[in-house]
Amino acid sequence: MAWQSMLTHLECARCGHRHDADRLANLCDCGGPLLARYDLEAVGRELDPGKLRRRADRSLWRYRELLPVRDPQHVVSLGEGGTPLLPLARLGAAYGVPQLYMKDEGLNPTGTFKARGATSGISRARELGATAIAMPTNGNAGGAWAAYGAKAGLEVALCMPVDAPHLAVIEAEVAGARTALVRGQISDAGAIMSREAPRHGWFETATLKEPYRIEGKKTMGYEIVEDLDWTMPDAIVYPTGGGVGIIGIFKALREMQAMGWIDGKLPRLFAVQAAGCAPIVAAYEAGADTSEPWADPETIAQGIRVPSALGDFLVLEAVRETGGTCLAVSDEAILSALRDTGRSEGALICPEGAAAVAAVPALLAQERLRPEDRVVILNTGTGLKYPGVIEASPPVIDPGDGLPESATGARA
Amino acid sequence: MAWQSMLTHLECARCGHRHDADRLANLCDCGGPLLARYDLEAVGRELDPGKLRRRADRSLWRYRELLPVRDPQHVVSLGEGGTPLLPLARLGAAYGVPQLYMKDEGLNPTGTFKARGATSGISRARELGATAIAMPTNGNAGGAWAAYGAKAGLEVALCMPVDAPHLAVIEAEVAGARTALVRGQISDAGAIMSREAPRHGWFETATLKEPYRIEGKKTMGYEIVEDLDWTMPDAIVYPTGGGVGIIGIFKALREMQAMGWIDGKLPRLFAVQAAGCAPIVAAYEAGADTSEPWADPETIAQGIRVPSALGDFLVLEAVRETGGTCLAVSDEAILSALRDTGRSEGALICPEGAAAVAAVPALLAQERLRPEDRVVILNTGTGLKYPGVIEASPPVIDPGDGLPESATGARA
Repeated sequence: MAWQSMLTHLECARCGHRHDADRLANLCDCGGPLLARYDLEAVGRELDPGKLRRRADRSLWRYRELLPVRDPQHVVSLGEGGTPLLPLARLGAAYGVPQLYMKDEGLNPTGTFKARGATSGISRARELGATAIAMPTNGNAGGAWAAYGAKAGLEVALCMPVDAPHLAVIEAEVAGARTALVRGQISDAGAIMSREAPRHGWFETATLKEPYRIEGKKTMGYEIVEDLDWTMPDAIVYPTGGGVGIIGIFKALREMQAMGWIDGKLPRLFAVQAAGCAPIVAAYEAGADTSEPWADPETIAQGIRVPSALGDFLVLEAVRETGGTCLAVSDEAILSALRDTGRSEGALICPEGAAAVAAVPALLAQERLRPEDRVVILNTGTGLKYPGVIEASPPVIDPGDGLPESATGARA
Repeated sequence: MAWQSMLTHLECARCGHRHDADRLANLCDCGGPLLARYDLEAVGRELDPGKLRRRADRSLWRYRELLPVRDPQHVVSLGEGGTPLLPLARLGAAYGVPQLYMKDEGLNPTGTFKARGATSGISRARELGATAIAMPTNGNAGGAWAAYGAKAGLEVALCMPVDAPHLAVIEAEVAGARTALVRGQISDAGAIMSREAPRHGWFETATLKEPYRIEGKKTMGYEIVEDLDWTMPDAIVYPTGGGVGIIGIFKALREMQAMGWIDGKLPRLFAVQAAGCAPIVAAYEAGADTSEPWADPETIAQGIRVPSALGDFLVLEAVRETGGTCLAVSDEAILSALRDTGRSEGALICPEGAAAVAAVPALLAQERLRPEDRVVILNTGTGLKYPGVIEASPPVIDPGDGLPESATGARA
């Protein structure tokens, strides 16, 4: 089949105003984020799961009709998407929810799901004529956009908190992005980039300030359903900072419904935040539609250390409409879930993914999850990006030595 | 199609002696490594590229007939294989070989191609009754086998050089492997594990000391050809330490020939070593069939710092039979290739992969590569595992500050 994006227009998620999709756009005049809309009726007519199954492309561009790039020459790809949905049999049994799955986003370029947003965001920005982009980031999105920007030949300017993961700084350096570190939070980085972008002619690509990052991320939703042979899980547990991942999955589910690819009850969406930075959980518990900025955010899960999210209202909508909930987990629970997952499943997950894992026993205890549920947790990145979270100091020996007791004993 | 491995027996790569494949085996009595053999005639009759294309499994287990696990219940998978073959248009143009591709093995579980060997090695060891395995490693193989061992519920004991990548130590720790560090080389670790394994009842899984690691790794060869729509490239450039990757690719090419899936001239195989540890290059240049141990090995590409390889003769055979060559590149050239690849292609590759990249201009200069060749380089892992190789210290600012000049200028 010829390449054809079925993108029709952009729509403000807040006021519903319709915008031209074929020029560079940031927010609606009302301040709301713009969402991409497609001719879903036409896609549903032309394409179906059977046709998708026969596509050789393993990257997320297999869903090209539902992505915003009109000319395949503009696609900037490093092989993102197509990540595995792994059954976590032993961890699931230990937690009491045997049908537990993990979608492992660590197997993306740059090691996180941020690559999905970067491939769609950078590709479309280039297609629409951008030559330089500006981005505030907690680290991993910056590393991803730097990489895709380099591949695209775009200039990339980043600003990230001074305590961002050092590997993201190295990613930016190797990709040739211009980077500044700020003594503050991602919100401070955002304010700086909003001031600087117009001054330098940079296209601003902060979370939900441009419409196409979410399009790449929504493919997680398509892939989960495709990997379950076009059935839906009962629940999806997602670590939530800016919220684009969970909003994107919800958008994908509704698109699949509209195209008739799935039917029945949508999975309950659970948004997990860190106890040290949980503005959306607080809003959920207060029955509010939007969140208040979180003062003094603090968590080892740096990717979800987002004190104020532009898409907070969309996260709350996704959670409420699907019968899910928002909940917070402590850093101690995150670390313990990270180790549980390593010991029983062999996966070195990131602290954000571990937050989602840690939420599972909590949700079971609250009876928000049932033992018979089929549950998908999202590990948003590889633990390799967080070398400081785990300590390890094995014994050191000389070539003639035998192995010390600690290196031979049975597993603890 | 039902799951069926078409494994028939093991064959000594040195003396040709035939061994039973259905019991745990290390080396032949003659000291030679054992290779898995299949009923290729039957596979060629039953399976073809068209059937493979329709398989939904994106992992390397899509080639299950040509892999050693007889019962799918024994497969231990973290979603390995199915890595992208990326066109490197800009780097290729800069180097003068426009049809340059990189197979990016960094998109595997544990971030390296070692996951391929671990999934086949651990799965088959478990199937044949092993409960504990012992492995000397430069780091990345240990991290991978620790992960797959944890998933399988096997005990894993590792010994690695004291300067192994710290992230591999963390992988081992999180997966619950027992680890010792030795003040020495991987050969010292190997000697220690050979002494300790029988004492503890561990199955020894050092490079080529068990027959199945290579089976997972050979799938890189199948995937390259499948990704090129069942045509062969003109050349494959591979960073070579223990050599299992290049030996495996050569094995896959010959299997595909035997099954009639490909025909014509095989790609020239180029084995790249680091100038500071190049025993196979030295043997090649001396016209020898085996290598001499390299004294005082030293390179930033730790994964190919292997002073003495059991499979040296198989690497030399693969290179000579395909009209390739062996060559060494300096650490300076490796670092420069790593940066070139980041700037122009957005990929943060590992130093071993960068050695393969660095070999491309050298091979062009030697007229071993022609500008019109279609060339595949293997990046064996993500650069995320080598945070110490690149320095980066961006400017630090306060929330009220503007961006400093260095964070706004055009790309260097």
